[in-house]
Order: sequence, then C-alpha cells, then structure tokens
Amino acid sequence: MNTTDENVFRHTLPVQLRFNDIDGLGHLNNSVYFSFYDLGKLHYFESIRPDMREIKEIDLVVANVNANFLAPIFLHDDVVVQTRTAAIGNKSIKLFQQIMTNRRIVNATCETILVGFDFKTGTTKPISAEWRQAIEAYESRTFEKEK
Amino acid sequence: MNTTDENVFRHTLPVQLRFNDIDGLGHLNNSVYFSFYDLGKLHYFESIRPDMREIKEIDLVVANVNANFLAPIFLHDDVVVQTRTAAIGNKSIKLFQQIMTNRRIVNATCETILVGFDFKTGTTKPISAEWRQAIEAYESRTFEKEK
Amino acid sequence: MNTTDENVFRHTLPVQLRFNDIDGLGHLNNSVYFSFYDLGKLHYFESIRPDMREIKEIDLVVANVNANFLAPIFLHDDVVVQTRTAAIGNKSIKLFQQIMTNRRIVNATCETILVGFDFKTGTTKPISAEWRQAIEAYESRTFEKEK
Amino acid sequence: MNTTDENVFRHTLPVQLRFNDIDGLGHLNNSVYFSFYDLGKLHYFESIRPDMREIKEIDLVVANVNANFLAPIFLHDDVVVQTRTAAIGNKSIKLFQQIMTNRRIVNATCETILVGFDFKTGTTKPISAEWRQAIEAYESRTFEKEK
Repeated sequence: MNTTDENVFRHTLPVQLRFNDIDGLGHLNNSVYFSFYDLGKLHYFESIRPDMREIKEIDLVVANVNANFLAPIFLHDDVVVQTRTAAIGNKSIKLFQQIMTNRRIVNATCETILVGFDFKTGTTKPISAEWRQAIEAYESRTFEKEK
Repeated sequence: MNTTDENVFRHTLPVQLRFNDIDGLGHLNNSVYFSFYDLGKLHYFESIRPDMREIKEIDLVVANVNANFLAPIFLHDDVVVQTRTAAIGNKSIKLFQQIMTNRRIVNATCETILVGFDFKTGTTKPISAEWRQAIEAYESRTFEKEK
Repeated sequence: MNTTDENVFRHTLPVQLRFNDIDGLGHLNNSVYFSFYDLGKLHYFESIRPDMREIKEIDLVVANVNANFLAPIFLHDDVVVQTRTAAIGNKSIKLFQQIMTNRRIVNATCETILVGFDFKTGTTKPISAEWRQAIEAYESRTFEKEK
Repeated sequence: MNTTDENVFRHTLPVQLRFNDIDGLGHLNNSVYFSFYDLGKLHYFESIRPDMREIKEIDLVVANVNANFLAPIFLHDDVVVQTRTAAIGNKSIKLFQQIMTNRRIVNATCETILVGFDFKTGTTKPISAEWRQAIEAYESRTFEKEK
C-alpha cells in the first residue's frame, strides 16, 4: 500500500444490521445510513484519539452532510462503513465515508463537515492542534493548511 | 364519567407514525411499540407532575414490562396510546397502557412496573408521597396501600 | 401571498418528538433529522398525489441529500418540517426542506435529489408528466424545463 | 456440557451498539432492548431453520413479551443476546432470552410467546412439526407435549 495514496481507507468498520433497519420498501431505510456513518465516525475518532474517554470530549459537531445513495442494501448483506479524513481546515474537518456491501459494491457515500465546537460556551472554535496531529498520524499523511 | 371507574384512561396521546416505523413485514415493528409506550409515559408523567422541568427529575425506572400484541398496525392507521396508573406500592408503580387504532381497536396492551430510583446513589427507593398524591389527584381516585 | 414567490413553503408538517430521538449528547440525534425529512416527503407527496394509495406507487428514489445542521433541537421543542419542490428536471426532482422549532428558528435545512425509478425493472426513468403537473398544481407555479 | 441442562443457551449473538441507542438519560434506551431481542430471535431462527430463505417464511408472530430490566447498559459495554426455547405448545413457542454485558452481568431478561400464524389467511395455526423437530434438534432436547 502506497501510504501517500489519499484515497485509501485505513478505517473499516463492519456494521451489524438489525431487523428493523429494513423499512416497508424492503431495504435499508435512508435514515439508518446516517446511524452507520455516525457509528463509523465514532469508532474512527476513538481510534485516532484513544486518549478521549468520553464521547462528550469530542469537541466537534456535524455542520453538513452530503450523501449519495447508489444501490439499495438488504437485510442479509454484509455491510461495512469506511471512514477517512479528506481535508482539515482552520475551523472544520471534512470526512469522506462509504458504505460497502459484500466487500465489492459501494452502495453509498457521504461527505461530512465537522466544525470545532466549545460545548461550554456553545460557540464554534478552531480545530485544535491535537486533532490535526492525531489525524495526520493516523492517516500517515499531512493535510494542506488553508491559506 | 363515573370517577370511581378504575378502568378509565384519563390520558390519551395521539402518536405520529414515521415511515421507518414500518418494518420489512409491512407493519409497525415490535420495538416501536415500546417507543410509543415510553412517549405515553413521558407525557403522562409531565401531565401529573408539571412541576418537574427535567426528564432526569423523574426518579422512576422501568423494572418490568409485560406487553401483548393483539393486531398489527399499519402506516396510515390513526394511533393513540392511553395510559393510567393501575397500582401504587411502597417501592413501585404499576402502569397500564394500550395502543388503539382508528379509535376502535385495541391493538396492543402493556403493563409496566416502575420502581423508585435514586440516580445519585444508584439504588432503589420508596415511591415518594409526592408521586402518590399527584397520581391520586390526576386519576381522581385513591390507591390501596400495600399491607 | 404572492403565488410567484418560489421560497414559500405550502407544506408544513408538525413532527412529534419521541423520548429516544434524543441521544447521549442531550439533543436530537443527527440521523433522526432524516426520519423527519422522510416523513415530510411522504406527507408532501401524499398531498400532491392523493390518487396514490400505496407508498410503493411513489416511483421516486432518493439519490442525494445535502443537509445543514444549524442549531440543536431539544426534547420539548415544538418542531415542524417544511417541504417544497425547488426544481424538476428530466430525470430528477429537487426538494428543499427545513426543520423549524418554536415557529421561529430554522434549525436545519436539506436539499434532496429524487430520481424517477421503475421498481419492476430496477432502472431509472424520466419524471412522469403526472408528477410535473401534480407538483406544479400544488406549488401554484411552473418549473423551467431543462435545456 | 450436560446436554440435558435446560438452562444452557446454545445461541449467543454479539450485538453492536450504535451511538443513537443511548438516550438522553445516558444509557441504552428501553425500546432498543427489543430490537436486540428481535435480532437474537432472527439469528436463532435462521440457525435452527437454515432452509428458510426469507424472513416472511417464518410463520410465527409475537403475541406477548415479558421483560425485566435489571441493570443499565452503556455505550462501550460489550453486549450479547442469548436465546433458547423454553417450551413448545400446540399453538405457541415460548422463548427465553437474556442480554449480558462484558460476559458477566445479566442486564435484562425476556420471555416471548410466539404463535403460529398463517400470513395468507391472517389467522393463528398450530406450531408445525417442522418447527418442533428443528428446535429439538438444535436444542438437543425434547419438549413435553401439552396435554
């Protein structure tokens, strides 16, 4: 693996489907995809920052998601969610995620913008140096600084 | 209305169905019934104790539920959940709830045992006099004391 | 009301929050927003096409959502989801939705691209004349044809 | 292992928690337990009857659940649901399930009564000989016939 390849996912999480994830149309309900992306993010962040013991320490909030639905997912599909950081700005991190089934098909993709957030003051704040360093170490690459 | 009738429900909450409440079998998923019972309980308790401003002030936890599924529920059904207190013991309250559709059919019933709980110490505690009085006032009846 | 105003929402749906919509962070979970957008879409389409009796007759599937999270939502907020059509193309419809609380604040917005879909053949298809006419009648406006 | 021990669980399913399984009280929401019991049942039935390819072939419906909540479950707990058949009657099967965390603690238990159901006619029916045989083979024991 070429460690400079920016399109490699270093984080792949198998996701367990539940019976009630399937809606009346017979496939995975649209809103459940976002539970999967959330779960991917949670495990990704915990892998990057094992020093954070509490979910509330993750000082990032979702500002935007842009998600593509490419192919339906069924109850017995073998599902994984893959997560990587695509960019780090002064006040935001862009994640790229995809949901694959049966190790072959990309069924859905999602870009998420997270912004630094101070839960005490309720205001946005810059992405900390800790996050930048931890992500760069985990992803084995550097991210360009915004000009 | 005969106020001594112990089988009257004084609390009826219309419930809004969501598309993803319906599972792959085409009817309301079993686990969603419990979201409805929970929602009924929440509104019931808030009606009884409007002095409680925070959900965390409700010092009761669910110890047991015993639920009957009588008839399936479909996406366009008009659904209500009805809630009443059936008994008040020293350390527990028994609620009785039912889910009706289209104002005619009882599709499901549920008995719930709640116990007094001290969230600070993490231990059970007696049902407070405040709860007994508030429930008796709301239900317009007295509940027998356990011997 | 000026019927040429393209930014007016003619469809507003009050949404009932459930206790378990609130996650461990104390506010509405991100994935629940998409249940609300779905519910708004369902009611919107049923208002536009009351001739469709079955959800499976709605020959549209979600291809993309682009959603902004502007302010958190709490358990006792009064929530509505508003829905309007923003554009109609040959093979897709673009919806614009927003979630408001307490009739004043826009907490979240979402653009959704739906594509015509033939569930029998499993392939995309053009947006039917029935949809275009029904939407234009409901929205009291015409939508430009793509060149 | 003594194969005549009726209290042994031969079916243990690890369950993956999701971020939004945790509610505003900071622990697993009550209604989510039933998703776990459902998932346990689904995998249990699929293990017993691998000949059934479609969920709709499972000609059993839930008539009653009786569930105890013994200890709260938290986001990072290691959760399994265990399932066994407790009794087989003429028209019903009784399952016993428990949810354990961290391989040590029984956090919740549930008895479920399932009845044979003919989805074509919408009426109950006896438990088939196929079910009885398949369950007895899987559980390595016989179940008393009701008199």
